[in-house]
Amino acid sequence: MSELIKQKCEACHVDAPKVSDEELASLMSMIPSWTPIVVDEVMQLQRVYKFKNFKKALEFTNKVAVLAEEEFHHPGILTEWGKVTVTYWTHAIKGLHKNDFICAAKTEELYKD
Amino acid sequence: MSELIKQKCEACHVDAPKVSDEELASLMSMIPSWTPIVVDEVMQLQRVYKFKNFKKALEFTNKVAVLAEEEFHHPGILTEWGKVTVTYWTHAIKGLHKNDFICAAKTEELYKD
Repeated sequence: MSELIKQKCEACHVDAPKVSDEELASLMSMIPSWTPIVVDEVMQLQRVYKFKNFKKALEFTNKVAVLAEEEFHHPGILTEWGKVTVTYWTHAIKGLHKNDFICAAKTEELYKD
Repeated sequence: MSELIKQKCEACHVDAPKVSDEELASLMSMIPSWTPIVVDEVMQLQRVYKFKNFKKALEFTNKVAVLAEEEFHHPGILTEWGKVTVTYWTHAIKGLHKNDFICAAKTEELYKD
């Protein structure tokens, strides 16, 4: 995961490459807590984080939001009582870009803090 | 809607009454921007709010979160770039309680501010 954390998201255009099947296997192994899901035929990365109450969940949401602005890569962040579900994908390419894995790894670090 | 805004959420137990079909029609008419949805057989209230960027969306999320703690009734708040989706339902009764309509109306007021 440390390899991903060192990187920054790059600007992503409609013709940017989706991760290949080989890359996917390698990148997923770096973020084992995340699950690949498919929503409306778009592959996404998702992880549910648990917290002891709503306040703690909201604090995490705001941390993830700071990261999103820093990287200018914005996930879906579902805040609920005791739970935050973070979902990354790259809208421009309707799928997964390396940026998504970089941000997933950095989100993981925020949870450890 | 003003009738709902004046009210506070009451403590809600497993045996609290769901809103009846008649009440539902009357309550929905007070919050016309909200849509009743059914997720896993549980009726919920949902509304998508649009914003000009991620920062504005996050600000709204935090406002809704303050309301949630004040009323001790916690919705799902999905924060995305330029968009916040708020979903209310009452977990304890697996459906809609008057509390959900009170909070939906108060959320609407937050958006107006």
